[in-house]
Amino acid sequence: MKKSLSVLFTAVALGLSTSAVADENAFNDGDKAVEYRQKALSVMQQNFAAMAEMVKGEVDYDAQVFTNRANDFEKLAGIPWSGFAVEGAMPGDNSDALTAIWDNWEDFQERSNDLQQYAAKLASAAESGSMDNIKPVFMDTAQTCKGCHDEYKD
Amino acid sequence: MKKSLSVLFTAVALGLSTSAVADENAFNDGDKAVEYRQKALSVMQQNFAAMAEMVKGEVDYDAQVFTNRANDFEKLAGIPWSGFAVEGAMPGDNSDALTAIWDNWEDFQERSNDLQQYAAKLASAAESGSMDNIKPVFMDTAQTCKGCHDEYKD
Repeated sequence: MKKSLSVLFTAVALGLSTSAVADENAFNDGDKAVEYRQKALSVMQQNFAAMAEMVKGEVDYDAQVFTNRANDFEKLAGIPWSGFAVEGAMPGDNSDALTAIWDNWEDFQERSNDLQQYAAKLASAAESGSMDNIKPVFMDTAQTCKGCHDEYKD
Repeated sequence: MKKSLSVLFTAVALGLSTSAVADENAFNDGDKAVEYRQKALSVMQQNFAAMAEMVKGEVDYDAQVFTNRANDFEKLAGIPWSGFAVEGAMPGDNSDALTAIWDNWEDFQERSNDLQQYAAKLASAAESGSMDNIKPVFMDTAQTCKGCHDEYKD
């Protein structure tokens, strides 16, 4: 990013319209969009895994740590989906996404909205500091992840 | 994640404390923490690149598209930093992070807080729908990225 930022500063400082050709990024290029959604989902999953080990009792429940992970999960819950909406970001060798996503686009969007709602509920439950409050919401959230993976992931 | 979610459901349904050994994740494992922060920073950078092409005039300014990218950038701006705070997540062959980060930890944290402030200002400026409002805030944000990269990235 160092190089691209330097180019940016030069271009803006000189008032240049640098070129007619836009940079490739996750919002105009299919391959980059696939990479984008995979990275975003991976970052989400790591937060979920850190919460899961407390829900499963593998590590002691720490309310502050759990809340940090739940808050970050909530912030991330809306990020991956734009990576499915870019032309060319359909399934290929580089993706486990099934064509069923694009055949059932409204259902897919509803499920991604559901996840965002559950992520918000999970962050609220985390604030309560009680694993009794957290566990049912966490399981609903996990079920939402799993339901979408079962339908739409190879 | 399909397999790990199934294990989760079984464990919680049976009331098992599955094992004394926690799963490895980005918050307890150095290598995974490096991967985590790199993915999170990459996802941030893609949003920034999509905004940059409008600031540079490479593509026409679209207020709604810009706002979407600015809002996602704001949500992401706090995510990567926990990946620098995990034991073992110090620089190695798998990272461009310089040891100067950990030698100047307070400065690094201040810079990451600055970025989050600028990201919030950028999202507000985006809401105004005016590139004249956006451009100076965008350049301040870019300068904040660049300043940290110059100090702390190989």
